[in-house]
Amino acid sequence: MKNNYKALISYDGTRYQGWERQPGCATIQGKIEDVLRYLDENGVEVTSAGRTDAGVHAKGMVANFLMDTEMSAQEICDYMNLHLPDDIVILELKEASERFHARYKATGKTYCYTCYDGPGKPIFDRKYVWRLEQSLDIESMKAAASYLIGSHDFRSFCKAPPKNKSTVRNVDQIDIKRKGSYVTLSFHGDGFLRNMVRIMVGTLVEVGLGKKDPKQVQSILESTNRIEAGATAPAQGLCLIKVDY
Amino acid sequence: MKNNYKALISYDGTRYQGWERQPGCATIQGKIEDVLRYLDENGVEVTSAGRTDAGVHAKGMVANFLMDTEMSAQEICDYMNLHLPDDIVILELKEASERFHARYKATGKTYCYTCYDGPGKPIFDRKYVWRLEQSLDIESMKAAASYLIGSHDFRSFCKAPPKNKSTVRNVDQIDIKRKGSYVTLSFHGDGFLRNMVRIMVGTLVEVGLGKKDPKQVQSILESTNRIEAGATAPAQGLCLIKVDY
Repeated sequence: MKNNYKALISYDGTRYQGWERQPGCATIQGKIEDVLRYLDENGVEVTSAGRTDAGVHAKGMVANFLMDTEMSAQEICDYMNLHLPDDIVILELKEASERFHARYKATGKTYCYTCYDGPGKPIFDRKYVWRLEQSLDIESMKAAASYLIGSHDFRSFCKAPPKNKSTVRNVDQIDIKRKGSYVTLSFHGDGFLRNMVRIMVGTLVEVGLGKKDPKQVQSILESTNRIEAGATAPAQGLCLIKVDY
Repeated sequence: MKNNYKALISYDGTRYQGWERQPGCATIQGKIEDVLRYLDENGVEVTSAGRTDAGVHAKGMVANFLMDTEMSAQEICDYMNLHLPDDIVILELKEASERFHARYKATGKTYCYTCYDGPGKPIFDRKYVWRLEQSLDIESMKAAASYLIGSHDFRSFCKAPPKNKSTVRNVDQIDIKRKGSYVTLSFHGDGFLRNMVRIMVGTLVEVGLGKKDPKQVQSILESTNRIEAGATAPAQGLCLIKVDY
């Protein structure tokens, strides 16, 4: 009889080719499944709330997996943390209802993106920020972000949009804050398209640097054309903070 | 005519064999001198306030060097930051009096050591902390630290003590603080012997884990015998914070 386990996971994505298992690549899913194989020789498939890109971090990824074991959830969790690399940790592991599915049951996600626009180089967190040479005007970024709030077709903010699936998403909160030379952009929505957060950040940063007018964001959205939006912000500044169920 | 420059330097020591230049090894001094060689083909020797061990970090190392150039101090600083690796930064560069010497003129130093004793693994700062499996009792560590305050022969807390030099040092402040699962030990003194901070930390941690009694620190000091003190704490938790002149 297999139990369904729900795991809360944090990882430093720096040295991984993203979440999804790929042959010959170090991935988060791959590392976790490799450890679970020792507990269930038939192999365990781990399903996450979503696939993070190469280099993206997570403080609150959620995943589930079915496994037949006599170990307690705490014992499985301890075993996993003992054998996982130093840059992946299981923060919590619990038995879940058999109907729990990390991807299908997710109702919302929070991502945070960190920029550094000060002098010098942020050496101790250089792998977790996007370093900008010029200072960001966060008031104009906030003005620009207001156009993104709500339910929109985010096709302009999507890499390789799916052909027969909706690209409408609801983004209900974007918080932009400065703390010294660090500017954080926090996004909450019901779901995000491929590269969507990074393209929104790239676009808002262009506004913050004065390269785009805040109002342009409205026409970018309406164009439903990726070419109109800003560049994709580097993966390393992005972190998945929380998944809602 | 050579000017004397004083540099305030920060570095992530993770991938370096310490401060001091060594053939065939990546070192902080080596990286900095390699960059300065482009500005003065005769080569520039950089003198620091002290040599940090392999893997030790710095937020406020001070160094000086003599160089004949027509560039301004700011231009030299910008040039260095552009060409130094991402894990070394010059925070400030100023012309100093010709009598300034980063090592001989230093009158005090502050080091900070960080331990993590919580559950799970501190993945995002795993390279900057010493992770302990058990919880530390910081009250007993504070009691133990009180014996180290003052002017003492710290021979018991020194790796390979020099034969004809004094091992007496004055440590005037040790602050031990807990913030969540992080315990920081901050040390201020007129100078520190080789591995002295790390051996003091290793000893205080043994007290915090209940393996040694706080009062034992007194007899360890009096023994002037390295074998009596605790193990040397790992380099990665240590950071040079400030040098006084």
